[in-house]
Amino acid sequence: MSNIKGKTLVDVDAGVHVDSWRVTNEDVGMAAPRWSVEKRTLRGGLSDGVEVVEVDNGALRYTILLTRGMSIWRGSYQGVELGWRSPVHGPVHPAFVNEMILGNLGWLAGFDEWIVRCGLYSNGAPGTDVLLDNNGNRREMSLPLHGRVANLPAHRAEVRIDLDPPGSIEVIGEVDESILFFQQLRLRTSISTAFGANRLRISDVVTNRKGQPGEMQMLYHCNFGPPLLEEGSSFLAPVRVVAPRDKISQEGISNYANYPAPVQGIIEKAFYFELSADLETGRTLTVLRNKRCDLACALRFSTRELPWFTLWKNPGAMSDGYVTGMEPGTNLPNLKSFERSKGRVVELPPGGSYSMTLDVEVGIGKETVERLSQETRKLQDMGTLTVRQQPAQPYSNV
Amino acid sequence: MSNIKGKTLVDVDAGVHVDSWRVTNEDVGMAAPRWSVEKRTLRGGLSDGVEVVEVDNGALRYTILLTRGMSIWRGSYQGVELGWRSPVHGPVHPAFVNEMILGNLGWLAGFDEWIVRCGLYSNGAPGTDVLLDNNGNRREMSLPLHGRVANLPAHRAEVRIDLDPPGSIEVIGEVDESILFFQQLRLRTSISTAFGANRLRISDVVTNRKGQPGEMQMLYHCNFGPPLLEEGSSFLAPVRVVAPRDKISQEGISNYANYPAPVQGIIEKAFYFELSADLETGRTLTVLRNKRCDLACALRFSTRELPWFTLWKNPGAMSDGYVTGMEPGTNLPNLKSFERSKGRVVELPPGGSYSMTLDVEVGIGKETVERLSQETRKLQDMGTLTVRQQPAQPYSNV
Amino acid sequence: MSNIKGKTLVDVDAGVHVDSWRVTNEDVGMAAPRWSVEKRTLRGGLSDGVEVVEVDNGALRYTILLTRGMSIWRGSYQGVELGWRSPVHGPVHPAFVNEMILGNLGWLAGFDEWIVRCGLYSNGAPGTDVLLDNNGNRREMSLPLHGRVANLPAHRAEVRIDLDPPGSIEVIGEVDESILFFQQLRLRTSISTAFGANRLRISDVVTNRKGQPGEMQMLYHCNFGPPLLEEGSSFLAPVRVVAPRDKISQEGISNYANYPAPVQGIIEKAFYFELSADLETGRTLTVLRNKRCDLACALRFSTRELPWFTLWKNPGAMSDGYVTGMEPGTNLPNLKSFERSKGRVVELPPGGSYSMTLDVEVGIGKETVERLSQETRKLQDMGTLTVRQQPAQPYSNV
Repeated sequence: MSNIKGKTLVDVDAGVHVDSWRVTNEDVGMAAPRWSVEKRTLRGGLSDGVEVVEVDNGALRYTILLTRGMSIWRGSYQGVELGWRSPVHGPVHPAFVNEMILGNLGWLAGFDEWIVRCGLYSNGAPGTDVLLDNNGNRREMSLPLHGRVANLPAHRAEVRIDLDPPGSIEVIGEVDESILFFQQLRLRTSISTAFGANRLRISDVVTNRKGQPGEMQMLYHCNFGPPLLEEGSSFLAPVRVVAPRDKISQEGISNYANYPAPVQGIIEKAFYFELSADLETGRTLTVLRNKRCDLACALRFSTRELPWFTLWKNPGAMSDGYVTGMEPGTNLPNLKSFERSKGRVVELPPGGSYSMTLDVEVGIGKETVERLSQETRKLQDMGTLTVRQQPAQPYSNV
Repeated sequence: MSNIKGKTLVDVDAGVHVDSWRVTNEDVGMAAPRWSVEKRTLRGGLSDGVEVVEVDNGALRYTILLTRGMSIWRGSYQGVELGWRSPVHGPVHPAFVNEMILGNLGWLAGFDEWIVRCGLYSNGAPGTDVLLDNNGNRREMSLPLHGRVANLPAHRAEVRIDLDPPGSIEVIGEVDESILFFQQLRLRTSISTAFGANRLRISDVVTNRKGQPGEMQMLYHCNFGPPLLEEGSSFLAPVRVVAPRDKISQEGISNYANYPAPVQGIIEKAFYFELSADLETGRTLTVLRNKRCDLACALRFSTRELPWFTLWKNPGAMSDGYVTGMEPGTNLPNLKSFERSKGRVVELPPGGSYSMTLDVEVGIGKETVERLSQETRKLQDMGTLTVRQQPAQPYSNV
Repeated sequence: MSNIKGKTLVDVDAGVHVDSWRVTNEDVGMAAPRWSVEKRTLRGGLSDGVEVVEVDNGALRYTILLTRGMSIWRGSYQGVELGWRSPVHGPVHPAFVNEMILGNLGWLAGFDEWIVRCGLYSNGAPGTDVLLDNNGNRREMSLPLHGRVANLPAHRAEVRIDLDPPGSIEVIGEVDESILFFQQLRLRTSISTAFGANRLRISDVVTNRKGQPGEMQMLYHCNFGPPLLEEGSSFLAPVRVVAPRDKISQEGISNYANYPAPVQGIIEKAFYFELSADLETGRTLTVLRNKRCDLACALRFSTRELPWFTLWKNPGAMSDGYVTGMEPGTNLPNLKSFERSKGRVVELPPGGSYSMTLDVEVGIGKETVERLSQETRKLQDMGTLTVRQQPAQPYSNV
């Protein structure tokens, strides 16, 4: 039998709520390794009322935002910062985010996470879509940038610590994106890490709780600033096809894998990818590597679950959020109606689920980073690389 | 002199706020009957910060939502559940409700109450109306579905317990729907029940606190799922006229009073009524009765106060909120501009008030339920029944 | 060295938050003068969660709203009330304010302050402007009435009490109006008063924290009801030009400086001013004076910092907010696109700042009030007065 210590932190339906709580290796009589889990409620400013769980496995630390859809705010590995410095200083309570301002770009007012999910009903650009209203009429309605889940709180959260070697810390959360007559989607996430490990795993299941078929989209917006991002950093991935999102991105297609120093006033570019993957397992990886090739972060996922990938390059001034995003998704973050027309929207039957697993792995040291780089090359060698010079169908509707 | 114990729970202007409080029959030295009143503040998820008062008269229990306009969330009578199971798991704090999303249908993101008021300035379908802005210009503005009051918190709440036989529990609340240059409406509600009784009374007064005439609308959206609603349940009322709201509802006009088992993917239907009432008192009733005719819930009200009635039938899959609503109102929940054109908007002079009393009564046992059914038949016999086969003026603008 | 007692109340980035705190002259061993500073968090109704700092210098009291952009809610001097009685009973937590309702007039749902800033990116009438979106496209977007800063919380707040004679109380706050790809403006305010003084000083610095040039607007909306405002009250200022904002205001131009008793149903009027100022210092003042000329409130500011002035006259029924506003600003509160076309939008380079100092001074007694009146006359005598009879360019776009 496993030696698991469990703690329910939030269960709204059951009336359970723990405002603050902390457990460490010492609390359970372990001398080593050192680890801790802490639940807190932030106070003041835009963060007032945001509930967080801070995980420290002894080497890797990260902060999970219960109040923001189980996003991961910031992290660090052996003291190296993971995440980015957004002009928005959060974490931001959803009460301060109005998705509709600035032409449905209001999501940006709450955006400063390292890893934030875009979804669950829609995950792309803002714009209109045709939905069925309560009276059975087809009506044009606005979809907000990147969907709603990042601004919805978990109604249930639980910590499970497995004390048997190697030992692990798991945080489980449930978030409902549910509106009468519209979507009834539930995210059930498990975010876990082993004691001392250099990686965390996000295992998500999205379930259609409606008595009718329902649509779903997911994109993991994983964002990196310094020190991982710097002049000379590279993006590595086993690319089958890469295409610029739009005209501005087209200008950067020949150099999509490389990063400049901060450029004041630069406009973001985005590149859309189809990736190669291991033929048996379907798993692939993408890597962001610093200039000296001694620091990297890899995302590992299955192209069967997350077949589309977006690279977001926003190397603006440091103050403006010098940042890049590696974004595996069920689709590309175009307007949902376009994605639907390309068959890139997941349809779930009543009660149906969609599972996705994303591993986030940090590499320190030239050898480790080289191993990650080789991994991408090995998968790259399996197929041919096509670089689309211009934004075009079926990737973009330009 | 009466023996009343009073407790102010919230009075923002006076700086009074009680976070949690509880009193029972034992606390006041009464051996019997058993009753309790409890004030709590919910924590976590969408409910974080929602203030509730839970009333238990010994037989009837219900939860009043101070933070959601003094709605009644759920109830039970002798263990029989009253209310419904919405896809939304609330109660939902208004900070998580943006009325404007989904074409001004955002109200639905917070909707899971047993009894919720629609109003105070408008109470119907979303759409545009012409309002006077601060500069004296007539401008087209959006009205949200079902108005604002359900997402406004009470600034004052008080409990009054009358210990003299028969004994009663009253919760008084005040909610302001007030915006400079626009409506300045105050709801003053008293929600009361006698010890051990099978009923509660909602006595509302809406006052125009503006120095100018002001409009007001009110509709009591009283919602029932299982066990009251099931295949074979019936709606009983002394009907003078019934008309379908729209084309889809028209299909169900011949069978409007009966309920099917849950139907996956069904579109809601709505029926509009004029009811007969007691000639002297103006009082009438509507009843929802289960299949075996041994469980019923009746609404009692005056057609002088609430002359229009809507029956909402949404017997979708259980997961989608298998539910029906009995909805007495000052008007029909059409777009306000249409209601105004039919003279169905209340106009209040400066300082003027409008009073409404709604009794909610639960019947258990065949005899009790039969008595309620007879009551509707007796009033029915006073007049003739007209069934409009199609949506039409003056009920609907189709 | 000065004898300053400092206390950090909120510092979100540093994880500092003081829920409640109070210090008085006695706490620091001073027998006299009497003064106090108190930090509290309001609970219940629309005010739930609003953090306030209440300052009492022994004669002048005021409440600073940390959660509403460091607005000053209400005040009093020697027991005379300063501020007004809005139909909105606040202070209102921003979670209850949706800027977009009622055609982008939603700001009004939170408006009941004595002194509230309009800004930082825009400060005027609601309407559309053309902004650059994240993809580098120019898009039409809505600007809300009076901007966002009043509904943004301070992420940092600090009290500094100088115990050396004459002694003073300073509250420092920082508020960010920051959205990725859009404005990144920081307000740093110091609100200070000397022990026993009849005045407070608001010293604001707005900084463009973006790596690109950024626009900024500011207007101090200082609002007065009774007793300062009454039939026979006067507005005094050294006017160079006054112009009515619109057709309705035009009707009142000949009598712009005088106030009637409450008029039921009156439509607001607004007058736009250029003021004379001291040639050396650039300082000027405006005064609101009661009928008996024994009570006045003066605003002192520099026309070099705040070159445009608006007088808002809204002498409606007492219940509707009988009120006038003296509003020095960087511009006139027209739609931003119009102000930009007239060169009345501040452009800040990357890292650039704009400083503004506003003194608010209360005068009691005929002699004091006469001195203030003379001050305005003296500055008036420096120039000529032009009264525009009609709304017109360059003041209004009518």
